[in-house]
Amino acid sequence: MSSSARPTGLIANSGIELLTAGTPNGHKATIILEELKEAYGKQYTVQAINIMENIQKEPWFVKFSPNGRIPAIVDHDRNQFPVFEGSAILAYLTRHYDPEHKFSFTDPDDVSRAEQWVAWQHGGLGPMQGQSNHFYRFSKERIPYPTQRYLGESERLYGILNAQLKDRDYLVGPGRGKYSVADIASFGWVNHAYLAGVDLTQFPNVQIWWERIVARPAVQKGITVPSDSKMHNAGYLKRLQEEPEFRESEEKLKDLAKKAKEQYNYKYSSP
Amino acid sequence: MSSSARPTGLIANSGIELLTAGTPNGHKATIILEELKEAYGKQYTVQAINIMENIQKEPWFVKFSPNGRIPAIVDHDRNQFPVFEGSAILAYLTRHYDPEHKFSFTDPDDVSRAEQWVAWQHGGLGPMQGQSNHFYRFSKERIPYPTQRYLGESERLYGILNAQLKDRDYLVGPGRGKYSVADIASFGWVNHAYLAGVDLTQFPNVQIWWERIVARPAVQKGITVPSDSKMHNAGYLKRLQEEPEFRESEEKLKDLAKKAKEQYNYKYSSP
Repeated sequence: MSSSARPTGLIANSGIELLTAGTPNGHKATIILEELKEAYGKQYTVQAINIMENIQKEPWFVKFSPNGRIPAIVDHDRNQFPVFEGSAILAYLTRHYDPEHKFSFTDPDDVSRAEQWVAWQHGGLGPMQGQSNHFYRFSKERIPYPTQRYLGESERLYGILNAQLKDRDYLVGPGRGKYSVADIASFGWVNHAYLAGVDLTQFPNVQIWWERIVARPAVQKGITVPSDSKMHNAGYLKRLQEEPEFRESEEKLKDLAKKAKEQYNYKYSSP
Repeated sequence: MSSSARPTGLIANSGIELLTAGTPNGHKATIILEELKEAYGKQYTVQAINIMENIQKEPWFVKFSPNGRIPAIVDHDRNQFPVFEGSAILAYLTRHYDPEHKFSFTDPDDVSRAEQWVAWQHGGLGPMQGQSNHFYRFSKERIPYPTQRYLGESERLYGILNAQLKDRDYLVGPGRGKYSVADIASFGWVNHAYLAGVDLTQFPNVQIWWERIVARPAVQKGITVPSDSKMHNAGYLKRLQEEPEFRESEEKLKDLAKKAKEQYNYKYSSP
């Protein structure tokens, strides 16, 4: 459930309360919560936080999420314990509410590998693709140097993911791997690749991995909470097909990025 | 010990082998390793990786650190288990080699709080201050928009740290807190505040916290491994006093940042 009035405080009395918005970072929390709901019947309540209205900077919010960012959770069953930062939310929820380790690991080496790939997303893919969103698309000024810097670094990071997914279905786990928090962390960003100017078809292992994950029922639900996004890959590709004006403006962005790369002698490459 | 020849593979047979350079992220690993050495006698071997020569992109290196970045560790006592990403290194080393929890926690709430503050550094302070380093100082072009964007976001993040440290000695732990991986994660970046254009005196709680941590013997050792930095706060302030030319060029950078902030109507604020 979600409230449509302007949030002013917590609304639930039990279970997990999620304060979030429909962004790649928000989707980490909604996807793991939908997976735990499907696997164990774990319930959660969501409040949509309108980040354009700066609800996330209000005193009641920063009491739970001191950085003033979404997503944040509050666990009403553990004395209103608050958790901020997506990677810490994934760790917390699986520690307390994934007793059969369906989305996490017990082998200490795999525990660490999952931490490593979650950290890779949290410190690299997330922040850098976020900057590419800004300079490729949202910034009022079109500035070539940071545009190619962040798009280039994002593409380098997709190349790393592509290499890790060679001969694997999932990032961590024995054999071809097991679906886990490591995949969930990066999925939200990969699911918005085109928004940031990244062409997913250039990274075939990542694309197959993305298709495998996006097909999960809990993921399908998670990416519509608290509201549906029109700019994840599927929505983006649909608009590209159906809206000639959108296609035209996207071609312009692509062309600007191409020129920015040429101007600065594109040098980003994955090992 | 460190090798001066160009590294081409691992050199140790037992204990932890650290592949690193003298950067804020590198210092997370060297500080926790020096703390563990002092507390438990845990030994480690270091290889200096010259990141200007792209050693970190070579095939032997990315086998251990697939993102092609420092720091990385290899644990010779656990089948050459490799760990990349600073936050995952802090978690791994304390999980396996901090049996008395001198730098980590056992209470599940504090475990999560430490994860949250490590994640805050890993996804926010580190990447954003890193971008401020680039646009405030290192970029060949002086571009006002990204300069004020990343300096502004860094200052906002220092404000968050300053608020968290009100009435506390350390970021996490009961009462006034306990020195832990949460502090070590952010310390390396705060110890290079001036490099990124951040004036530490504007954040008094952070400054006192920084003074408290920088005084630790293991920290003093850690920040000189694999080589001493001239651009951490102490080195920076010394150069500012002793080198008139340096002072002059720093004044120019400050002035450019001030003008960039004015041009874009500086809007970064901490809750």
